[in-house]
Amino acid sequence: MVNIKRIGVFTSGGDAPGMNACIRAVVRTALYEKLSVTGIYQGYQGMLDGNFTEMTSRSVSNIIQLGGTILKTARCLEFKTKEGRAKAYENVKAAGIDALVAIGGDGTFTGADFFSKEYDIPVICIPGTIDNDLYGSDFTLGYDTATNTVIEAIDKIRDTAASHERLFFIEVMGRDSGCIALNAGIAGGAEAILLPEKETAIDELIAHLSAADGRGKKSSSIVIVAEGDQNGGAYNVAKKVKEKFDYYDTKVSILGHLQRGGSPSSFDRVLASRLGFAAVKELLKGNNRMTVGVRGNEVVTTPLEEAINNKEYKLSSDMLELVQVLAI
Amino acid sequence: MVNIKRIGVFTSGGDAPGMNACIRAVVRTALYEKLSVTGIYQGYQGMLDGNFTEMTSRSVSNIIQLGGTILKTARCLEFKTKEGRAKAYENVKAAGIDALVAIGGDGTFTGADFFSKEYDIPVICIPGTIDNDLYGSDFTLGYDTATNTVIEAIDKIRDTAASHERLFFIEVMGRDSGCIALNAGIAGGAEAILLPEKETAIDELIAHLSAADGRGKKSSSIVIVAEGDQNGGAYNVAKKVKEKFDYYDTKVSILGHLQRGGSPSSFDRVLASRLGFAAVKELLKGNNRMTVGVRGNEVVTTPLEEAINNKEYKLSSDMLELVQVLAI
Amino acid sequence: MVNIKRIGVFTSGGDAPGMNACIRAVVRTALYEKLSVTGIYQGYQGMLDGNFTEMTSRSVSNIIQLGGTILKTARCLEFKTKEGRAKAYENVKAAGIDALVAIGGDGTFTGADFFSKEYDIPVICIPGTIDNDLYGSDFTLGYDTATNTVIEAIDKIRDTAASHERLFFIEVMGRDSGCIALNAGIAGGAEAILLPEKETAIDELIAHLSAADGRGKKSSSIVIVAEGDQNGGAYNVAKKVKEKFDYYDTKVSILGHLQRGGSPSSFDRVLASRLGFAAVKELLKGNNRMTVGVRGNEVVTTPLEEAINNKEYKLSSDMLELVQVLAI
Amino acid sequence: MVNIKRIGVFTSGGDAPGMNACIRAVVRTALYEKLSVTGIYQGYQGMLDGNFTEMTSRSVSNIIQLGGTILKTARCLEFKTKEGRAKAYENVKAAGIDALVAIGGDGTFTGADFFSKEYDIPVICIPGTIDNDLYGSDFTLGYDTATNTVIEAIDKIRDTAASHERLFFIEVMGRDSGCIALNAGIAGGAEAILLPEKETAIDELIAHLSAADGRGKKSSSIVIVAEGDQNGGAYNVAKKVKEKFDYYDTKVSILGHLQRGGSPSSFDRVLASRLGFAAVKELLKGNNRMTVGVRGNEVVTTPLEEAINNKEYKLSSDMLELVQVLAI
Repeated sequence: MVNIKRIGVFTSGGDAPGMNACIRAVVRTALYEKLSVTGIYQGYQGMLDGNFTEMTSRSVSNIIQLGGTILKTARCLEFKTKEGRAKAYENVKAAGIDALVAIGGDGTFTGADFFSKEYDIPVICIPGTIDNDLYGSDFTLGYDTATNTVIEAIDKIRDTAASHERLFFIEVMGRDSGCIALNAGIAGGAEAILLPEKETAIDELIAHLSAADGRGKKSSSIVIVAEGDQNGGAYNVAKKVKEKFDYYDTKVSILGHLQRGGSPSSFDRVLASRLGFAAVKELLKGNNRMTVGVRGNEVVTTPLEEAINNKEYKLSSDMLELVQVLAI
Repeated sequence: MVNIKRIGVFTSGGDAPGMNACIRAVVRTALYEKLSVTGIYQGYQGMLDGNFTEMTSRSVSNIIQLGGTILKTARCLEFKTKEGRAKAYENVKAAGIDALVAIGGDGTFTGADFFSKEYDIPVICIPGTIDNDLYGSDFTLGYDTATNTVIEAIDKIRDTAASHERLFFIEVMGRDSGCIALNAGIAGGAEAILLPEKETAIDELIAHLSAADGRGKKSSSIVIVAEGDQNGGAYNVAKKVKEKFDYYDTKVSILGHLQRGGSPSSFDRVLASRLGFAAVKELLKGNNRMTVGVRGNEVVTTPLEEAINNKEYKLSSDMLELVQVLAI
Repeated sequence: MVNIKRIGVFTSGGDAPGMNACIRAVVRTALYEKLSVTGIYQGYQGMLDGNFTEMTSRSVSNIIQLGGTILKTARCLEFKTKEGRAKAYENVKAAGIDALVAIGGDGTFTGADFFSKEYDIPVICIPGTIDNDLYGSDFTLGYDTATNTVIEAIDKIRDTAASHERLFFIEVMGRDSGCIALNAGIAGGAEAILLPEKETAIDELIAHLSAADGRGKKSSSIVIVAEGDQNGGAYNVAKKVKEKFDYYDTKVSILGHLQRGGSPSSFDRVLASRLGFAAVKELLKGNNRMTVGVRGNEVVTTPLEEAINNKEYKLSSDMLELVQVLAI
Repeated sequence: MVNIKRIGVFTSGGDAPGMNACIRAVVRTALYEKLSVTGIYQGYQGMLDGNFTEMTSRSVSNIIQLGGTILKTARCLEFKTKEGRAKAYENVKAAGIDALVAIGGDGTFTGADFFSKEYDIPVICIPGTIDNDLYGSDFTLGYDTATNTVIEAIDKIRDTAASHERLFFIEVMGRDSGCIALNAGIAGGAEAILLPEKETAIDELIAHLSAADGRGKKSSSIVIVAEGDQNGGAYNVAKKVKEKFDYYDTKVSILGHLQRGGSPSSFDRVLASRLGFAAVKELLKGNNRMTVGVRGNEVVTTPLEEAINNKEYKLSSDMLELVQVLAI
């Protein structure tokens, strides 16, 4: 077991609200425990470039409420090569970093697993992605904030939809995971929700919308489309619906990257603080290649390999059923 | 001069936040003055259909904070015909409506002018459109709220833009008017703003972005594109920039109709209340074919014909200059 | 087992964001299952007064995003008497109500338990209170929204605190439960948090603030005080601190009832929808005197008596520790 | 006329949202014009202490959206003495500052006027205060944001007020100026508004509330009380009302300093950018002892002495009347 004196912390992959709150917790917990902390910019790219900075308590003052990540993030193909990782390790060693805390998604976890095994350096991973599709935690950092951002947009669109009797298709993030779409769709009172995990036939969708129409609800129909839906996104769904269902004026809205930003919700800030704190504690206990997460109200750990090799879709069966029921 | 006992109120054209606050002010001011009020649904379409409702103080309770319009709105081609207006007049007469308050934009004003002249019915118009492009008022209902909606989106996108060193193109509403684009662009700290009123050469834009890059500002460049920009919208601008300027990862965001919704800002609610109040007062003074608006802190009136035949772009020259200056 | 044809739904006790989303889910699930639904106004008071309304799908349109409760709520001493409950039962029977769904807190649950036992009427309870202090669910309706409301206030106060080097005491709701204070305090980056569950000596608080001061953090110190803190609320804490610790300009803010309002967060809307759906399903399964709640991502039930007789404080030990650690 | 090479910029008095956007505009405009800029911390106190910093384009990156002021602010009694100003001038001279831009309220303007006359140093003042009570501008920095903050609080409180049939008294900022109270009260749909500028007899208030009650509106009465109201603030008004008008449960909310914080609205950011830009331009034109402000859509200047010696209450007579009318 390594005697840890300095940890390195970085964010990698897509940024997510709460990453700054998490960096703050990692840094302050480490300092409290008399460790030093190196901030690594731009994830694995920064390891390769030796793009490091010393973190003090002041470095993380007044960042808990900020979206994005002060350590920035990047994609890094070179780290996928043996040579890349060798270069990274040299920089890490030269900086005196004994252990790592990695905040990110699937790709981040995989990179950390490789690196830790190859160079025998302890690493704890924290699930940070708005998609909420990682195994080992009920929630990932940023998911709650992103869902709130989406429902604010839906609430606004419903105002104008209701004033005009229009049919709106709103595309939200989620290439493989329908978590944001399903939750924001339920929370936004959407008439229908199209998910990557479940094929939705256009005819079925039209039948559903027509039925709602028949019940006199036509004035504010909103359909949420996850970007990974099998019909090819909101523009395509709208086009196909329009070909067969002429009644409405239809409009499409692509929320895009604004879903990644914004001040984190209370839920995400608390989650980030707890997981950052727990990650440092796990390192100090001598643990390695673990993820930290929450189950119910408790912080839990999962072996990194298990987290990587399993998928956990958080689409409970009651939620899929209630979409149908509540849209009546 | 008609002895007014009952007024009709309607919203027409694109909906805008603040319309409900304005309806409330018209209704309550009229009731206070012992007039009766008929709510006309869906603008001119509702006149044609006789789609009317009696308005009481209760009808407008708890709506001041709601986006959209409880009276709904629609486009109506039939009202542009002589026959259409004749049918509308019959319904209006049958309902005992002596005078009208119309809330909307250019098209609404033109329809009201025709109708009032043809059937000698008093009408006062209130400028309601997020575009802020009407003559006769410093501000139109909904513009302030829409601009705040846009800067919230920009603020969110800047979080993620800054975390990734990306170039973002954000398309905002404004087919003929750059008012939202210019104000939200300045307020959002955008690097560049493309307006319908002003041709922007792509080469110039690239030169500007490269210069900013050279000054080390590349990490969070945001370009606002009004939908009516002469380069053809944000997707086209992004494509053209990308062909010549390879450095960045670029992303496009189309805010779309969420700009029309949302709870109105304090500014819009106060403006709506003042103008609704003033419209009824003008009718009672015996005025006809006027618009009400604000200049500085004062409510003013403008003859309807003058409002229709003039354009008022609120792009002060200092603002165009300061876009260049502040982006350094 | 009763053959249920009509259910009654009501909200009781303090209102909480998400109650409307929950009413909507109860109504629509019941209608979907071919049941009729009676809305009971003002909780137990409405039962006594026979203040009922027929609920249709339309009754609950466009309410998912609204704070408060469309069925209103009230305190009702008379229902605590045998005579009061007899009168209530007569009204309930006369209205053909076979079963009840009650949304509220501790007092609501106790009333429902009594009533159900006395008159053998099935009842399912849904935990709705911003305090998050009910047994049987990780979260109660409204708690997440209230916590977000508090951190928005903290974020705003931090702006001005930082500009002036001031010490702020912010009082938040929580007579017996420190759940909002602890979570919002962590999420808001507070220097110290005073909870009802834990005595905090003023000297200790001052020592803690002085230490932070010594580390150069004095510019933005914020102390969160739950209203049930044993020092007697924020004004008293501020006064006692001021007597001994003269350095700062101190200000007190009492957030008060704005913590109960606002559009519910996505989390609360989804929770409300799931629990309303589940409550009706439980009634249809023939269950009685249960609460519905969530544990992790799953909906669970708890016998009503167990829920009433147990307390569940959701203050995890790691969270109490990290308040100390993160404030360095 | 001085040949200006370096300007000093500072914020003074109470902080207001938009001050950072204004500092950014001053700095970037000056740099664009090839001037150097010194940031002076904590207003006049920083002049006395020589608490200065060099401002670059980077110093003001990513601050346009932040509440508070990065230059901080303070009250400074010593600057009111001749000796204090002498010391301040020495520091200013030593730092090579040729001219000043001061952002603040009445006290800030008065100090600037004295200093400029005594030491013949050019100064331009920018009205920054949430109270909107300065002569020479339709709007002051921060007022629009503060008003929006207040209506968000009112909207939240109305949710819970409506659910319980309660009477709420909300105290808002404004010791001498009822501008926030009047505008937020109208925008929030308040039943009554108590202003410093106008005595309101408690009996009259009760009569007004009773009348509303008689019209069946009792369920959501909200009374806005400016802190400078002559009845002594919301607690006192509530107490006096309660003594005579027993029907309601009454609650008091003191919003306090959260009204000073928060991300500035689009209106305030644009206003701040324009005035910061204009202030530097005025200095370059050789002007001195002026304020910059807006009238309608145009930037205007006013001699500093005139601004100091006049009061401008922005309570239009139509607004005072419509409070009565709209509360029916």
